[in-house]
Amino acid sequence: MNHYPKSIVNVIRNFSRLPGIGEKTAERLTMHLLRAPATEVKMLAQSILELKEKSRLCGRCFAMSDKEVCRICSDPSRNQELLCIVEQPTDMAALERSGAYNGLYHILQGVLSPMDGIGPDDLRIQELLSKVKKEKIKEIIIATSTNVEGESTASYLINLLAKLPVRISRIASGVPVGGDLKYVDQVTLKRAMESRYDI
Amino acid sequence: MNHYPKSIVNVIRNFSRLPGIGEKTAERLTMHLLRAPATEVKMLAQSILELKEKSRLCGRCFAMSDKEVCRICSDPSRNQELLCIVEQPTDMAALERSGAYNGLYHILQGVLSPMDGIGPDDLRIQELLSKVKKEKIKEIIIATSTNVEGESTASYLINLLAKLPVRISRIASGVPVGGDLKYVDQVTLKRAMESRYDI
Repeated sequence: MNHYPKSIVNVIRNFSRLPGIGEKTAERLTMHLLRAPATEVKMLAQSILELKEKSRLCGRCFAMSDKEVCRICSDPSRNQELLCIVEQPTDMAALERSGAYNGLYHILQGVLSPMDGIGPDDLRIQELLSKVKKEKIKEIIIATSTNVEGESTASYLINLLAKLPVRISRIASGVPVGGDLKYVDQVTLKRAMESRYDI
Repeated sequence: MNHYPKSIVNVIRNFSRLPGIGEKTAERLTMHLLRAPATEVKMLAQSILELKEKSRLCGRCFAMSDKEVCRICSDPSRNQELLCIVEQPTDMAALERSGAYNGLYHILQGVLSPMDGIGPDDLRIQELLSKVKKEKIKEIIIATSTNVEGESTASYLINLLAKLPVRISRIASGVPVGGDLKYVDQVTLKRAMESRYDI
């Protein structure tokens, strides 16, 4: 890496700080930028600079937003009686891509993880409770991940919300659509068997 | 992707234009930047902006440089009688990392590739010839890649340089050090057998 001039070494070093990007990939990306049109390179740098300045959390659902209230929260055509709880903005984006949901969201901004020192106070749980009490929500769908942290966060929330007069549901888990049974792990298969439905 | 605000979509879109980075990776990188310290993000953007402004080609060997003549060309301790021809600056960096070479370089800035419309005039071949005629070079090592384009560029250069009073050599090819014979392709094995040496 020291065989390049300083301006190139700087970019390689900064790229390789990003997750999943090693020194070789960083070198390849930098070489691409050197050959790319100047406007394209400037656009990339500019958009990164603006990222931090313009992005904020929506005051209502804690999704990423560039306004006080995000696009979904301020959309009157969304079902105001449905609230879906997810861990991160990326989970919300994945659900939106699926097109299967038309209600509102609440982004926890993480999961309970005692090992990492993340407790209920580090997540947007107080805001969730006051939102549910204040607004006319009829059903809460808990869509945290189905790993250990996601499941324990779901249990914690179910306990907390059980006292409130709302229906609580959890996204189903089972064999992925298009999945080959022989490649599905046994815990998922067990869950799929237990949750089997009549046809 | 449209489920994020515009400032985030811009970064995702610009990242996914880079080679080997799909939309999912671009999303992950952007989320990392959102969580990263502002100074780190600014450093990345700044270094990308400076990349194009400060980088230029060395006037002597056509390596990347931030000065008129690069660090290697202006180093009097390098062997001025050895010239190694490589395709790209990354190849030069790889050879420098190996520590096996102490001479000068000439970077062709590509390989002959009729399929892509790249002929001798698109490479730094005229500059190579005039350099060899003018300077006191005794040996030229052709270190283009060992794929089809690299080999045909090597043949072309050997033909061209054969008239000049210099020794011409080609880097050896064979089984990589630490390589397992059963994973080595048959062309490489054939080459390794042909180039076997007495011990």
